Amino acid sequence: MSAPEIPSPNADVRMRGFAQRATVEAATAWIDSVLPAFSALPATQVALSVASGCILATDIISPVNVPGFSRSMMDGFAVRGEDTYGATAYNPLSLRIRGTCLPGKSFPGTLVTGEALRIMTGAPLPAGADAVLPVEQTELDGLQVLARGEVSTGKHVAQVGEDIRADECVLRAGRQLRPQDLGVLSSIGVSQVSVIRPPRVRILITGNELLPAGTPPDGFRIADANGPMLSALVMRDGGEVAASDMILDDPQSIREALLSPAEIILVSGGSSVGVEDHAPRLLAEEGELAIHGIAMRPSSPAGMGRLSGRLVFLLPGNPVSCLCAYDFFAGRAIRALAGRSTAWPYRQIRGTLVRKLVSTVGRVDYARVQVRGDDVEPLAISGASILSSTTRADGFVIVPADSEGYPPGAEVNVFLYG
Amino acid sequence: MSAPEIPSPNADVRMRGFAQRATVEAATAWIDSVLPAFSALPATQVALSVASGCILATDIISPVNVPGFSRSMMDGFAVRGEDTYGATAYNPLSLRIRGTCLPGKSFPGTLVTGEALRIMTGAPLPAGADAVLPVEQTELDGLQVLARGEVSTGKHVAQVGEDIRADECVLRAGRQLRPQDLGVLSSIGVSQVSVIRPPRVRILITGNELLPAGTPPDGFRIADANGPMLSALVMRDGGEVAASDMILDDPQSIREALLSPAEIILVSGGSSVGVEDHAPRLLAEEGELAIHGIAMRPSSPAGMGRLSGRLVFLLPGNPVSCLCAYDFFAGRAIRALAGRSTAWPYRQIRGTLVRKLVSTVGRVDYARVQVRGDDVEPLAISGASILSSTTRADGFVIVPADSEGYPPGAEVNVFLYG
Repeated sequence: MSAPEIPSPNADVRMRGFAQRATVEAATAWIDSVLPAFSALPATQVALSVASGCILATDIISPVNVPGFSRSMMDGFAVRGEDTYGATAYNPLSLRIRGTCLPGKSFPGTLVTGEALRIMTGAPLPAGADAVLPVEQTELDGLQVLARGEVSTGKHVAQVGEDIRADECVLRAGRQLRPQDLGVLSSIGVSQVSVIRPPRVRILITGNELLPAGTPPDGFRIADANGPMLSALVMRDGGEVAASDMILDDPQSIREALLSPAEIILVSGGSSVGVEDHAPRLLAEEGELAIHGIAMRPSSPAGMGRLSGRLVFLLPGNPVSCLCAYDFFAGRAIRALAGRSTAWPYRQIRGTLVRKLVSTVGRVDYARVQVRGDDVEPLAISGASILSSTTRADGFVIVPADSEGYPPGAEVNVFLYG
Repeated sequence: MSAPEIPSPNADVRMRGFAQRATVEAATAWIDSVLPAFSALPATQVALSVASGCILATDIISPVNVPGFSRSMMDGFAVRGEDTYGATAYNPLSLRIRGTCLPGKSFPGTLVTGEALRIMTGAPLPAGADAVLPVEQTELDGLQVLARGEVSTGKHVAQVGEDIRADECVLRAGRQLRPQDLGVLSSIGVSQVSVIRPPRVRILITGNELLPAGTPPDGFRIADANGPMLSALVMRDGGEVAASDMILDDPQSIREALLSPAEIILVSGGSSVGVEDHAPRLLAEEGELAIHGIAMRPSSPAGMGRLSGRLVFLLPGNPVSCLCAYDFFAGRAIRALAGRSTAWPYRQIRGTLVRKLVSTVGRVDYARVQVRGDDVEPLAISGASILSSTTRADGFVIVPADSEGYPPGAEVNVFLYG
C-alpha cells in the first residue's frame, strides 16, 4: 500500500498516534524518582509577617525560657501560700495589701509573711511570694485583703520555662507554619525564619491560534484559558510563577523558553505527536523525554522529562486535560519541591453514585461529578473539551485503570474542588 | 466590713470579676444579628491573575458561545460522514486529501464528496465537512486517506455553544473562584472580575509590658505574640490587615485607634475588667459593649461590640485565649464579611480519646489535642497560658457547656489545625 505514496512532510509523524502509553503509576513513579535531585533548593529568609503557610527549612531551637520569669496566671493577689492555710469563706484570713505588681515591671522589695500584693495576669511574681490567690477567693477590707480560700505553693504561678524551655526544639524543619506558630516564634525573639524557597515555575503557553487570556474570541481565534488557571494552581501548591506568557509555536522560541531560569517548566499545548507538537521532540533531542502519552482520560497526550536540571511537564492545550495533567503530575512535583505533601490538596468525601459511571479498562478516568448531600452524579459530557464541566462540577472521582466503572448505588470517593 | 475602707482608686473595678458571663451561643448569635448591617461592602475589580480565591460579587453572564465555531475534538480528518458509511478495516474507503485545517485558521473552500482534510484538535471544521474521522481509524495511501471505520454526522465535532452558551450564567455571585474558573472567565473574554472587597481589619496590640513582635525578651518585658498570629489569621480568613501595631495602654490612644478606618477592630489585651482594661469601658461609653465575659475556657475575658459602624472584638492578651476568641468570634465575622462560609476553616476528623478529657458544666472548653492515627490525646497542660500547646497540638476538641467532659474511649470530633 505504500508504493505510490508521496506523503506531505512529516504527515506520518503527525498522524502516527502514541505507539504505547505509560501508566499513571509509571509517570508518578518517574516523578518521585527524580525529585530527590531537586530537593536541595536553597532556603530563604522571610519576616514573620509573611511566614504563615511557608515551610520551615531548619529546626527552631528556643534561645530562651518562656516564661523567662515566674509570672501570675490569674488576676488576684501575690501571697506566701502558707499565709492562706486554713482560710475559708467562713474563716477568712487577713493580709495587708502592700501595693501592686504590673506586667513588665519588677516590684521593688520582698513580700513578707502577712502581706499581699495586687497582681495582674502575666505580671512577674514579686520576691517573697510563691502563689497567687485569685480575686474570686478574696474580699477587700480597707487596706487589707481577706483570703477566703487556700492556695498552695506554686498555685496559679507559671514557672520559668514552663511553656518553652531554652534549647528546646519548638518547631521542626518541614513544618508548614500556622498562625499560632508565628506567635511562638515571636515569643522567643525570632523575627525572621528560614523557609524553603518556593520552586520557580515557568509557564509557557503555546498555540498560534490563541489570543491573550481574557481577550474576547475573534473569529477562529480563542483566548488562552490555561495561563491564568495554571498560575493559580502553581500558587496554590506553593510554587512561584517565575513568568507566564504565550510563546510562538516554533522550535526556536520553544527551545529558548525551555531553558528559562526555573526549576519547573510547564508547557501548555503542543504536547502530542503531531508535526506542530514541537516540545516533546525538543525535549527528547536536548534532554530526556521520559514519559510521553499516558493511559488516562483526559490528558492522554501529556508528557514529562528533564532538561538541564529542569523538570519539564508537557500539558495538553485542552483546558480540562491541562488541569488534569497538572493535578496528576506537575502539581505533585511542585508541592514536593515546595516542601509540602505530595497528596492532592482536595478534601475527600464518600458518596453514592446516582448514575452509572462508565470507564474503560486500561486507563485511569478523571470523572467530574456534582455532589448533592450524599448523592454523586457524574456530569453528562461528551468529551474532555468541556471546560465548563470543571466549574459545574463540585469535584471528581478517579476510576482506576483496572475498572470498567461503577454501577448506580456504588459508594465512591470524591475529591472536592475548592 | 466597708466602714474603714480607703481603697486605692478603682481597686473595686479591677477586682470585681465578671458579674455574669454570656454563653458562646449568645455571643455567636449577636455577631450573626449585626452582620447584615455590614454585608454591603463595595465590590472591587481585580485582574484574573490575582482573582483565585476571591469571592465573586456579581453573576458572570457569558457574552459569547464557547466554542464560537464548530471545531474538531480529535486529530484526524474532516470528512462528510456519509462518505465513510460502510467503511471497515477490511473494507477501507478511499478519500482524497485536499489539505490541512489548522487551529485558529479558516480553511478556504468547501469540502466536497470524496474529499478529506487533515485536521488537528481544536481546528475549525471546514465548510462542507460534518464529522471528524479519528487518525486511529485511518491509514495513509499516498495522497489518499483510507477510512477504516464509519463516522456519523457531528461525530467528534464540538458544536457552537456546546461548552458555554451566550447569555448563560457561568458563575454565580458568592462563588469563591477556583483556578479552573479563571480559565472559563478567560475563555469568554473576561479579564477583570468584580469581587467582594476584603474587610479591612485593624489590629491593636495593647500591653505596656510588650516589646515588638520577634524581639528577644528583656527582663520582665516580653515580645508581642498576638500581632503576627492575628495578621496570619485575618489573611487566612479573607480579611485585609489594614494595620497592625502596638498602641499605648492609655484611654486616649485606645479611643483614637478604635476609630481607625476599618470594618473590624481587633484589640489584643486589656479586655478584662481591671483598672488597666480600658477598651471595654471605652467601647461601652462611646459605642456598644454587647458581650463582655463569655462562659468558655480559655478566652472568658473576651468581649465584643460596635463603635460608629465598626465591629470591635476584645481579645484577651494571653495568646492561647486570643487564638481561641479569634476563632470563635472575630474569625466568624471576618469570614462572613469576606463572603465566605462562617464555618471554621479546619478539617474535621473523628477519633478516640486515649485519656479522660475533663471539663466543667456551664462553660465551653477548647481542648488542644494530639492525634496519632485514630488516637486523640488531650495535652497535659496546666493552664491557658501555654502558647506552645497550640503548636504541639494537632488540633482541638470542643467540649460543650452541658458536658463534664469525656471518658477514655469516647469518640470525639477533632478540628485539625493547618
